[in-house]
Amino acid sequence: MNGATVWLTGPPSAGKPAIARALAERLRPGRRLDEVRAHLSPGLGFSREDRVDNVRRTGWLAHVLTRNGVPAVVPVIAPHADTRRQVRAAHETAGTPRLEVHVATPLDACAERDVKGLHARQAGGGLSGLTSADDSYEPPEEAELVLDTRVRPPAESAAQVHALPRERGLA
Amino acid sequence: MNGATVWLTGPPSAGKPAIARALAERLRPGRRLDEVRAHLSPGLGFSREDRVDNVRRTGWLAHVLTRNGVPAVVPVIAPHADTRRQVRAAHETAGTPRLEVHVATPLDACAERDVKGLHARQAGGGLSGLTSADDSYEPPEEAELVLDTRVRPPAESAAQVHALPRERGLA
Repeated sequence: MNGATVWLTGPPSAGKPAIARALAERLRPGRRLDEVRAHLSPGLGFSREDRVDNVRRTGWLAHVLTRNGVPAVVPVIAPHADTRRQVRAAHETAGTPRLEVHVATPLDACAERDVKGLHARQAGGGLSGLTSADDSYEPPEEAELVLDTRVRPPAESAAQVHALPRERGLA
Repeated sequence: MNGATVWLTGPPSAGKPAIARALAERLRPGRRLDEVRAHLSPGLGFSREDRVDNVRRTGWLAHVLTRNGVPAVVPVIAPHADTRRQVRAAHETAGTPRLEVHVATPLDACAERDVKGLHARQAGGGLSGLTSADDSYEPPEEAELVLDTRVRPPAESAAQVHALPRERGLA
């Protein structure tokens, strides 16, 4: 698992953090996940430009950790295909594999869960810029793994993700 | 050496990167150092506020690496005592030691070396904001090690820094 960055991409409320937490618990029981955005990108908002910057910084951090043997599990929306490609290319240039996992919960199921109440705020006119609506989520075309969280609980998804690097000969 | 972040603080041209490179070569021969500022803080300049942000981000990254067992050697001016204290406090809160090494080359010797030609540009009026002149460097009062690079070549300084965590019972 140390041999590759695992990036969980998917729309809001798709279930990324739950899978990441379950995976982290498998890898290092009792260890918390680091809150990257709060520390690396405190001044950034959710405009397209700021999101791109945040994803790039997070991708760079993941690559530094991975090439030093620290498992990097990144549950970040990363809505734009071109930014995800840049992060992948930066990893490849450094000789560090990056595996993309698409947490492919359908948008209507995400809206129904609405974990942070964002869809409701948007429907009420109190929010704009929500990924998958104003600023659409671009699904990956070349993900190494696609998960449907409607049919699989987080712990099972985490087990699938955990097995991925080994299946690819990277761990 | 994995047990603590080692922060090399000192004015420009004091010789921090040379010591960091020599230390990195002792720790992991052939491995390059990562260029943090270019990746984490591409939009930041050299104002007081931007420097504080850059030092905080770099400190956070160092703490994540250190607590994951990756040696973090940070050759960054970090001119302000209060920001260095914040980084130290954040490390302590996380239970991650941070050792401060003061690369205490006297300012006149730094100006004479003028590695990047910055002092010359400032003297000619083409630059402002240079640490140790416009925006003065605040020497640490509680550094774990003080190095004078006029009397000691980088490789020897690196050996002293390398020994430090063990002397403190941290490696």
